[in-house]
Amino acid sequence: MKISELSRATGVPVASIKYFLRQGLLPAGRATAATQAAYGEGHAQRLRLIKALTTLAGLSIAATRDVLGAIDQAHSSEGALGAVSYALAVPVAARQAAGPEEEEGEAGAEVAELIAALDWQVPDTSPHVAGLTAALKALRGLDAQYAPGELAAYARLAESVARLDLERAAGLEDPVALAERAVVVLAICAPVFELLRHLAQEDQVRRRVAADRSGAGSGAEPGPGSAVPR
Amino acid sequence: MKISELSRATGVPVASIKYFLRQGLLPAGRATAATQAAYGEGHAQRLRLIKALTTLAGLSIAATRDVLGAIDQAHSSEGALGAVSYALAVPVAARQAAGPEEEEGEAGAEVAELIAALDWQVPDTSPHVAGLTAALKALRGLDAQYAPGELAAYARLAESVARLDLERAAGLEDPVALAERAVVVLAICAPVFELLRHLAQEDQVRRRVAADRSGAGSGAEPGPGSAVPR
Repeated sequence: MKISELSRATGVPVASIKYFLRQGLLPAGRATAATQAAYGEGHAQRLRLIKALTTLAGLSIAATRDVLGAIDQAHSSEGALGAVSYALAVPVAARQAAGPEEEEGEAGAEVAELIAALDWQVPDTSPHVAGLTAALKALRGLDAQYAPGELAAYARLAESVARLDLERAAGLEDPVALAERAVVVLAICAPVFELLRHLAQEDQVRRRVAADRSGAGSGAEPGPGSAVPR
Repeated sequence: MKISELSRATGVPVASIKYFLRQGLLPAGRATAATQAAYGEGHAQRLRLIKALTTLAGLSIAATRDVLGAIDQAHSSEGALGAVSYALAVPVAARQAAGPEEEEGEAGAEVAELIAALDWQVPDTSPHVAGLTAALKALRGLDAQYAPGELAAYARLAESVARLDLERAAGLEDPVALAERAVVVLAICAPVFELLRHLAQEDQVRRRVAADRSGAGSGAEPGPGSAVPR
């Protein structure tokens, strides 16, 4: 198909397609004339993925290039998952603020203890370890660190979510197809869980308000936060 | 304290502090001379929060201003939580790509069915409903929609995470203090859960690789994805 048809098929403007071609994110089409090229279904699929990564997952062009590179070099499902996971970690780590140095030790120890307690098999060099350490350090700076046990409670739920993620990512035979699926699950579905969490928070806040209005006799569980208004 | 001391106390450069003052994110100090002002502990606390919102939570200056406005106008804990939750939803919704229109109906129906099935008390007008609909629409465009039951499984875990979130946000008497805590929990702790999820994924990928290498006799659970390498 022509570039204009590719644009219609994917909803990506022609100017953006040309930009992605120049940036090397999208392979060139088959030349059919001096200024024309033909594109196939593979181009459309890749373009939809680029669009999802740059908009829904919020990745930069450079980070998108890293993730696509990880996809194209994947030789096994675990290799694909690992490469994609690390490629995605870069923007997260880059987003972390470099805070005052003195707290690094405590936050680092907290992360190491958590990983040991959960028996998670991750190396100290994982970018996710660095990211989590930076995040906990920032929370200490805000005097909002997790109470003992709270972080472990979140971690156990994260483990259940990761199990669902891996089940969704598995089952495809072709490594490149699997790597693409891994990107979708790891990068693009992350906001879906965040949105579900926001909705669940909203539901629980509304239930508490309703419980406060109708007094102690309502069916909703008031929970620890309901007694605060004054 | 002087602006230079405020900078040292918070790790925020003087130029950034001046920028936040000009943008109205940080209230002016008490004037002590024509070109000097004194700042208190409240300024330091607010500055640490601004830094966390703009770096760790990745919010724009405009979004940060909305969130801080929600904090300052909070009169009750639930009001604070609700206002902060909606203020935070804006950047998420803005990040969603506007995809082809034809799928909107199916994704919208999927969200409505999910909310009904879980008996979540959220109005159709919630920005989180719009965000989730846009995200599911994008996944349909990538031919990566959730299988029946998968989204509900994620939603039930999100409910458990939200319950932990609300417990962390509750228990403060002062509405402004509570709203600040709500921002920390809702905006800044969200990446912590993401990082825990990445670590748990990494752990499970490593266990599967180890199980594949050592054959079926290993202690690790192979799981559905382990048979893919070839």
